[in-house]
Amino acid sequence: MRVTVNRKAHFNAAHRLCRKDWSDETNAEIFGKCSNPKFHGHNYELIVSVTGNIDPKTGFVMDMKLLKELIQTEIEEPFDHKNLNEEVPEFYDLNPTAENIVVVIWNKLRAKIDKKHDLAVTLYETPRNFVTFNGAK
Amino acid sequence: MRVTVNRKAHFNAAHRLCRKDWSDETNAEIFGKCSNPKFHGHNYELIVSVTGNIDPKTGFVMDMKLLKELIQTEIEEPFDHKNLNEEVPEFYDLNPTAENIVVVIWNKLRAKIDKKHDLAVTLYETPRNFVTFNGAK
Amino acid sequence: MRVTVNRKAHFNAAHRLCRKDWSDETNAEIFGKCSNPKFHGHNYELIVSVTGNIDPKTGFVMDMKLLKELIQTEIEEPFDHKNLNEEVPEFYDLNPTAENIVVVIWNKLRAKIDKKHDLAVTLYETPRNFVTFNGAK
Amino acid sequence: MRVTVNRKAHFNAAHRLCRKDWSDETNAEIFGKCSNPKFHGHNYELIVSVTGNIDPKTGFVMDMKLLKELIQTEIEEPFDHKNLNEEVPEFYDLNPTAENIVVVIWNKLRAKIDKKHDLAVTLYETPRNFVTFNGAK
Amino acid sequence: MRVTVNRKAHFNAAHRLCRKDWSDETNAEIFGKCSNPKFHGHNYELIVSVTGNIDPKTGFVMDMKLLKELIQTEIEEPFDHKNLNEEVPEFYDLNPTAENIVVVIWNKLRAKIDKKHDLAVTLYETPRNFVTFNGAK
Amino acid sequence: MRVTVNRKAHFNAAHRLCRKDWSDETNAEIFGKCSNPKFHGHNYELIVSVTGNIDPKTGFVMDMKLLKELIQTEIEEPFDHKNLNEEVPEFYDLNPTAENIVVVIWNKLRAKIDKKHDLAVTLYETPRNFVTFNGAK
Repeated sequence: MRVTVNRKAHFNAAHRLCRKDWSDETNAEIFGKCSNPKFHGHNYELIVSVTGNIDPKTGFVMDMKLLKELIQTEIEEPFDHKNLNEEVPEFYDLNPTAENIVVVIWNKLRAKIDKKHDLAVTLYETPRNFVTFNGAK
Repeated sequence: MRVTVNRKAHFNAAHRLCRKDWSDETNAEIFGKCSNPKFHGHNYELIVSVTGNIDPKTGFVMDMKLLKELIQTEIEEPFDHKNLNEEVPEFYDLNPTAENIVVVIWNKLRAKIDKKHDLAVTLYETPRNFVTFNGAK
Repeated sequence: MRVTVNRKAHFNAAHRLCRKDWSDETNAEIFGKCSNPKFHGHNYELIVSVTGNIDPKTGFVMDMKLLKELIQTEIEEPFDHKNLNEEVPEFYDLNPTAENIVVVIWNKLRAKIDKKHDLAVTLYETPRNFVTFNGAK
Repeated sequence: MRVTVNRKAHFNAAHRLCRKDWSDETNAEIFGKCSNPKFHGHNYELIVSVTGNIDPKTGFVMDMKLLKELIQTEIEEPFDHKNLNEEVPEFYDLNPTAENIVVVIWNKLRAKIDKKHDLAVTLYETPRNFVTFNGAK
Repeated sequence: MRVTVNRKAHFNAAHRLCRKDWSDETNAEIFGKCSNPKFHGHNYELIVSVTGNIDPKTGFVMDMKLLKELIQTEIEEPFDHKNLNEEVPEFYDLNPTAENIVVVIWNKLRAKIDKKHDLAVTLYETPRNFVTFNGAK
Repeated sequence: MRVTVNRKAHFNAAHRLCRKDWSDETNAEIFGKCSNPKFHGHNYELIVSVTGNIDPKTGFVMDMKLLKELIQTEIEEPFDHKNLNEEVPEFYDLNPTAENIVVVIWNKLRAKIDKKHDLAVTLYETPRNFVTFNGAK
């Protein structure tokens, strides 16, 4: 039986939407107030979803304590209370839209989670806007 | 990479469950208090989910400002503070169950969203009852 | 020790803001789309708060099962799936604004709750608009 | 058109993670504080999701009143205010992890829901940990 | 200016409502299924509210990191994943109703928080039942 | 009858905790990661609470449309998608702790709301940390 286990986490960060290879005018035209050069920020809320068979020994798909610690090490510590554009290397040359952030998070976690498990990540940028990625191409 | 972007919206409306081609007695028997001829109402909360590739230029699947405006024009303005049975033409001859409402909303949005994107709509009739439609047949 | 015990409940109803002694034009001018003569509706969420001393025998301020049943009898049954303007006598001649509804609910419950207890009622008309009344004049 | 209807429910229960065929030491080593022999507990929140075609007669996938009553009879009554390990027969020999509980709930409901409908169950053990099962193997 | 700062926390615990000096029959009669001798449990969610003047040096009423740590040490560690009746000394001879628990928590925190600050505690036993205590007599 | 009407609103902003008259080392020592010179950010959620008598003519304490517009003009427009420290004049020389922000918001709204009404403001910096100010000294 394949069950999905989900764990919520969160981090607070500053960002702006911008491409370094565009002028400020073009960034403002395309991204509006989200491109404010002085930055704005969000409480990002995260749901990490791991799908796999229930281990008949433990009754777990995976130990949620380990998943919680993995999210802390891989996502919360490097992202929390940071400026995504200027302090998180993945976004030095990548526009930190919610879509790009959720793919970066998925890739970081995918590298650390057993390949027999499927992975999906949901990222709330605000309580009204959120994105989901499950590795689909 | 195919990512889903989700946007929340809401409208408040009156409705009753009823078929015009049934007697009041039959409507009451099948739909109970939901068929009250004087109407009742809900705060409908809506989640519109659009799935597509991230545009490498903008980092967006689609501009959430445009999605927000589309939901306002197509759904919030015609439905909000309305009597669904008597003032929203799609329900003149269609029983406004949550299931039928979510299909109507999906069809209205589907006609306006780029065909390369997938669309799903979730509609909360109450915080305890909700429905989802993604075009599946 | 005076502790407050709080119980959530809910009802779904249709209403319109209107004074019968005003013309439709005046109602529309003052109440806007909330005055739609065909009605709209809400999922009203209710929090009933009772403050009193802890009974040293039971450890209760009041038995929450009794409070739950009182809310069902006094509020949910007469209000749920109703048209407030046309089917709830308290609003035949009283404009069912959130403010007036919360006072009506408070008065109905106040009559049934032990006078040694204080009472406050919070009513959510939508997740974004809510009102509170505690009997203050 | 295949629509999913979702209904929320809830029950409060005590449990501990443990295998009877393991020593207390092994249970403590694998399950940590979740294996406390004196038990702990949760407010389990449940979402039952039924997918099927809209009945053109009623506009329903299935009558939500019937679904609500089914959840009460099959899940809330046998599980609510119980000790899962000691009072719910399905867990006499099955470790009541969230994963195992959601499969038990799914099986109980699957036996009672029309085979033409698909079924998924989401179970929140806490607001931060939840699991989903849809019958996939 | 006196501002209130609020911090949320949570713990999961088993309990039963019961007085040791009453028979099982009397406990069952007064407390119903909440008195199940095998226990049930809850995800208790806590809001700790501290009111005081803003320190003009820091802009804080009190450092929220210190408040978070205080709640962990005083409440979460001794209560989380415990059986309140059997493992938390304050309830060996005190019925663990929500009312009694919130007073115990308030007393534990009151002893550790600067006397120039006011303190209130809100405890959610379920998302639908909660209690508040601010020291009033 | 004095009733409280409450309206929710929100803005997203970057900030850092810092006093300009302190060294970076002192700011880091006192404010920790909240003092990151590159900024971080939040989705601030706001509840504005206005208490007054119900106007017997309208049934309103105050027209919620006017309150909504007032919050937009006074708070959302100047604060949303801004860097509080660098772009909002009230914080050029005032550390933007949640406590100081809620007082600034209260003062801005107090100046625009009829003196016969009482005013309280609640500001969520995160879903777990929030502050309230009602003008008390």
